[in-house]
Amino acid sequence: MYVVILAGGSGTRFWPLSRKKSPKQLMSVFGGKSMLQRTVERVMPLKPKRILVVTNVLQAEESARQLKEYRRHVRIDIIEEPVGRNTAPAIGLAASIIARYDPDGVMLTLPADHYIVNEDEFHATVKRGYEAARDGFLVTMGIEPTRPETGYGYIEADTEQGGCAGSFPVRRFVEKPPLEKAVEYLDSGNFYWNSGMFIWSVDAILDNIAALMPELTASLAGLAFSEDFWELEDLKPQIEELYLDIKAESIDYGVMEKADNVVVIPARFGWSDVGSWSAIPEVAEADSCGNVIISANNSITLDSGGCLVYGGNKLVALVGVKDMIVINTNDALLVCANDRAQDVRQVVAELEKRGLTEYL
Amino acid sequence: MYVVILAGGSGTRFWPLSRKKSPKQLMSVFGGKSMLQRTVERVMPLKPKRILVVTNVLQAEESARQLKEYRRHVRIDIIEEPVGRNTAPAIGLAASIIARYDPDGVMLTLPADHYIVNEDEFHATVKRGYEAARDGFLVTMGIEPTRPETGYGYIEADTEQGGCAGSFPVRRFVEKPPLEKAVEYLDSGNFYWNSGMFIWSVDAILDNIAALMPELTASLAGLAFSEDFWELEDLKPQIEELYLDIKAESIDYGVMEKADNVVVIPARFGWSDVGSWSAIPEVAEADSCGNVIISANNSITLDSGGCLVYGGNKLVALVGVKDMIVINTNDALLVCANDRAQDVRQVVAELEKRGLTEYL
Repeated sequence: MYVVILAGGSGTRFWPLSRKKSPKQLMSVFGGKSMLQRTVERVMPLKPKRILVVTNVLQAEESARQLKEYRRHVRIDIIEEPVGRNTAPAIGLAASIIARYDPDGVMLTLPADHYIVNEDEFHATVKRGYEAARDGFLVTMGIEPTRPETGYGYIEADTEQGGCAGSFPVRRFVEKPPLEKAVEYLDSGNFYWNSGMFIWSVDAILDNIAALMPELTASLAGLAFSEDFWELEDLKPQIEELYLDIKAESIDYGVMEKADNVVVIPARFGWSDVGSWSAIPEVAEADSCGNVIISANNSITLDSGGCLVYGGNKLVALVGVKDMIVINTNDALLVCANDRAQDVRQVVAELEKRGLTEYL
Repeated sequence: MYVVILAGGSGTRFWPLSRKKSPKQLMSVFGGKSMLQRTVERVMPLKPKRILVVTNVLQAEESARQLKEYRRHVRIDIIEEPVGRNTAPAIGLAASIIARYDPDGVMLTLPADHYIVNEDEFHATVKRGYEAARDGFLVTMGIEPTRPETGYGYIEADTEQGGCAGSFPVRRFVEKPPLEKAVEYLDSGNFYWNSGMFIWSVDAILDNIAALMPELTASLAGLAFSEDFWELEDLKPQIEELYLDIKAESIDYGVMEKADNVVVIPARFGWSDVGSWSAIPEVAEADSCGNVIISANNSITLDSGGCLVYGGNKLVALVGVKDMIVINTNDALLVCANDRAQDVRQVVAELEKRGLTEYL
């Protein structure tokens, strides 16, 4: 099995800790490993043949630095996209590379910035998905919902028809629903959160891209691969050329929603896409009042709850504060109501507008 | 006229910016001069003969450093109290010193940590008070209330009896009232905020101390003054000795509430005792949404109002934040609901309890 890690996100919602050169997946929120490093560690027990990390030029250097240690144990290739073009081109490119050298390869595609609680369950789920992928299916991991989340897309499974290895055929993909719908989906028992984690044979995904996104296939067909096994250095200028014309498209919209051999593998390993600061309390240990205080030299909390504080190694004191996000980095201090965490993007947009590039 | 500045406060409510060695009056909230420096500057146009600054041992060095420049223009003596004993001993000591060398002296007593908007009006008020003091009255400056403040004590004036120089006899002093009473006082027209700013002849105040606080007078009587004019160095060990036994008492309780020659001079110069962080917006320039952002390299505010942020020279971003105090110093980060500003003292108490003395 091959692992493709999509690591090109910009993560503006994690400003000011995330920056253009060190976005969410490269950030060390908890002072330890980054999400990219955790993603690599998580797949190591699966003994992947190789890992391809698709990232962008700004982040390639830091990605390489963070992955140096792991390269002693597994071959990791870093592919630099000159510009982001959403997931379909990145996946098509990675699949083309794998297929060139191993036409029977199966690839597990993972975003670099997701959080997973139970790694054993994750491995078991991947193994089931691998079986279904070997049978030619496009497998998507569907997270069993635990709350009527309106921030995720959903997958409706046809649970009346059992599929291979515990999978179910997919009826449809649903965009982020209003609350009412989300409650309905939660109660139905056959809706899953769309995690953006996929397993398929390179053969199957390339066939589907050829059928559903012929332009992308045509672009990828122009790549001249080295005869040397996995020598990707020659590809670099070609990829730069390729991306000039390539259309931005998600693999969900481009392929998954239209293909007829898509199945969902139900997953219950505890998952979050950690979409904004307000998701951190889901994935971090909170005190008895629900406060998560990170990077603090010490802390004192009086009548405060539901707060996330990144202290920048200072003593942190909270007095009568509820549901607040406070992020204190070397050069910026963000204070944000918990329910406005999505709007941190607006701060980044405003910084851009004002030309305050040193903070981006 | 002599000016006595009471500068020994600890100001724990301004933690983490205020510390034991640099309390509120020595703090530079706005990046410019400290409140002590502003207090000295404010009295300079009154051409005081001398200024006595009563402070404590921890703060004497920093006080001297901050006042160095002003000593080129006026003689400033710094008197160190070995321990704080409230205002009566400090005032009694200062009055005794002045009386020793100038028995006819009139003294203006000012806390070092108050904020005054209109300096011309302040000078005019002091001049009226000076006249009443020359006539033997104990003069207290009463601030005309502008809101039903429950955080200040009040002075009830007998406005039916006009007094000397626009003053009124004082009927009574009232402790911090409940809101209902405060509204009543505001409406009455003859209640004033007790500012803790006084004018009297040293003669009059010492007579009253002798009558009402004989123990204090007995203690002060033991002081052996130098023959040299204003050579206070010899007093230092005597003051240390004196304070071992002296009782803590406020001049309000010890003298003003009991004396029969107390008058109030109505003052309307715009005043705040800046009692806690929540008072800063009263005395600083706020943006159109009521946010005061100090010590920030730059700032972005989205749907935020009523906030006070001390940014520690960082870029400050607020998203959906209402009525919050955020103070970011070199080693500590305080986040506090505006209506809980008084409870910052509890944080300081907790730091003491935990032995985290480096933050005190």
